[in-house]
Amino acid sequence: MARAWALKSRPEGTPVADNFQLLESPDAPIGDGEFRISNSWLSVDPYMRGRMNDVKSYAPPFGIGEPMTGGAVGEVTESNNAEYPVGCKVLHMEGWRDNVVADGKAPEGGMQPVKLPELGVPDQHWLSILGMPGGTAWFGLLKVAHAKEGEVVFVSAAAGAVGSTVTQIAKAKGMTVIGSAGGAEKCAWVKEIGADACIDYKAGPVLPQLRGALNELGKTGVDVYFDNVGGEHFDAALACSNERARFAICGMIDVYNDQKPQSMQYLTMIIGLRIKIEGFLYPDFAAQVPEFNADMAKMIQAGQIQGRETAMETLEKAPDAFIGLFSGANTGKMLVKL
Amino acid sequence: MARAWALKSRPEGTPVADNFQLLESPDAPIGDGEFRISNSWLSVDPYMRGRMNDVKSYAPPFGIGEPMTGGAVGEVTESNNAEYPVGCKVLHMEGWRDNVVADGKAPEGGMQPVKLPELGVPDQHWLSILGMPGGTAWFGLLKVAHAKEGEVVFVSAAAGAVGSTVTQIAKAKGMTVIGSAGGAEKCAWVKEIGADACIDYKAGPVLPQLRGALNELGKTGVDVYFDNVGGEHFDAALACSNERARFAICGMIDVYNDQKPQSMQYLTMIIGLRIKIEGFLYPDFAAQVPEFNADMAKMIQAGQIQGRETAMETLEKAPDAFIGLFSGANTGKMLVKL
Repeated sequence: MARAWALKSRPEGTPVADNFQLLESPDAPIGDGEFRISNSWLSVDPYMRGRMNDVKSYAPPFGIGEPMTGGAVGEVTESNNAEYPVGCKVLHMEGWRDNVVADGKAPEGGMQPVKLPELGVPDQHWLSILGMPGGTAWFGLLKVAHAKEGEVVFVSAAAGAVGSTVTQIAKAKGMTVIGSAGGAEKCAWVKEIGADACIDYKAGPVLPQLRGALNELGKTGVDVYFDNVGGEHFDAALACSNERARFAICGMIDVYNDQKPQSMQYLTMIIGLRIKIEGFLYPDFAAQVPEFNADMAKMIQAGQIQGRETAMETLEKAPDAFIGLFSGANTGKMLVKL
Repeated sequence: MARAWALKSRPEGTPVADNFQLLESPDAPIGDGEFRISNSWLSVDPYMRGRMNDVKSYAPPFGIGEPMTGGAVGEVTESNNAEYPVGCKVLHMEGWRDNVVADGKAPEGGMQPVKLPELGVPDQHWLSILGMPGGTAWFGLLKVAHAKEGEVVFVSAAAGAVGSTVTQIAKAKGMTVIGSAGGAEKCAWVKEIGADACIDYKAGPVLPQLRGALNELGKTGVDVYFDNVGGEHFDAALACSNERARFAICGMIDVYNDQKPQSMQYLTMIIGLRIKIEGFLYPDFAAQVPEFNADMAKMIQAGQIQGRETAMETLEKAPDAFIGLFSGANTGKMLVKL
């Protein structure tokens, strides 16, 4: 029996369990040139919230009653395709389900299944530090914001999949890092992975804490802001910018569920400080993935970057894992282990 | 008798006449190497509002009871300096007064008096289309936003000194232009100088009008937004952006007097559309002023760009002219004619 999660209804605000339904169908047989991937790890990511709305965006919305998609790692368990023999492990985009029949070609708007290179890292790292979240961190920090050795980087959601990778890359490259995370335990972990300071946004307003952290570190301001959350963090980063600061805007999880206006007090700083703000998406950097993989593998092997995952077990838990992203239930990358 | 305007007190919110005082002192004699400039035109500009607050910014605040500074054009009427003989006309930064003794050197943080080149244009153009506002328009549109032929440009305060120049440069370079201005009369003028459409922001909310203008012109969205006002215009531009739109942020006159937070509903568009937002200041482009002057003079001589000024007469009127900027009392560049 093949099982896959679909939307039962479109979430309004924060998604709830009742928005999802588990579809069951007999396992499809594999045809000529086809093979079956049995998934072992599924990714749930904040960007999926956008695809649950029925609006035009950079990716089409998920259909109601149709299996959702997302990053997954699995193993080939049946095969009529010599390129993908039984036992071969692949990274692909047919997540939210336990198994899928594939033909090795890229589905419309999707990507071809990629055989995992032998780097001696745990499989699930291909969904975290070596996958989309890791690439988002690396491209945003180095190719969008052009962060350089000696600069001050402020990163929100620093205990999340992307933010924790930003923190570690920045430290490996000789930058000063101030993170922000929710709760003392997460903040302690963010400092453990190298951040020079970490603000607890649940303990009080961001701006005075950010000013305090800069003072304690003897820094005048922020050179690079890596934004995963928007709202209050974005505004505080504007208020504390150095001249010619660069903002890489990767996500605004604060406002994905709640489209009410953001109250911004410091946008005028953009002018006098000549701040540059740029949005970006991981797929835009597809051509540079090999450069990212090579640099990241080097840092992992040198012990400069560690992957950390929060995994919920069994397919049944996929919606819980996804919903947990919005309350900060994860430290590091949120995954589902089948 | 030499007269100069100073701040009597720092404005709170919109400046009022009582914030200003006219200082009088006997004309200073000119010493060795010095010369007297008698001003004929003074510039008042929105950026001066920032210098009236007692806060660190890109320029130091005006002192209380000290002559303010700003762009001015004048004529040398006494001289002990062969470089600046009697009758020579100069552009300089000792505005807000009727005459000044200069030595031809740049004051701290200021600029050297520049002798007006012979381009056959009215003197006051050096404070408008060939001066700081014109340069701000040219650099922002072409060097910050990299606007190209065939693109759609949205410009706020399109009847103002900078915005009306943006409009005309963009049309001369083959772009489609949607302006925004306050009132039917200003909108008519913005169309007269070439805009394909002009929104009257006093007649209703900006966003539906911008969407309507794009529809009528058969355009999908905005490629370049030139921001002079911030707030609602900025948010509407985000909502109507094309992919990879560029925003040149030059001013936010909507919020200079009133530091209450701006309510922004569409900041998340930055991510999916990969919008690039950049603040800039005219002085950053000092090295490229000759390139700007040459290109602008060519467009003026070809009749593609016309300067328009709103001038108030006599030095007494300088504060009124300045205060009028915030209620839109000017069409084109606001000046004071002595």
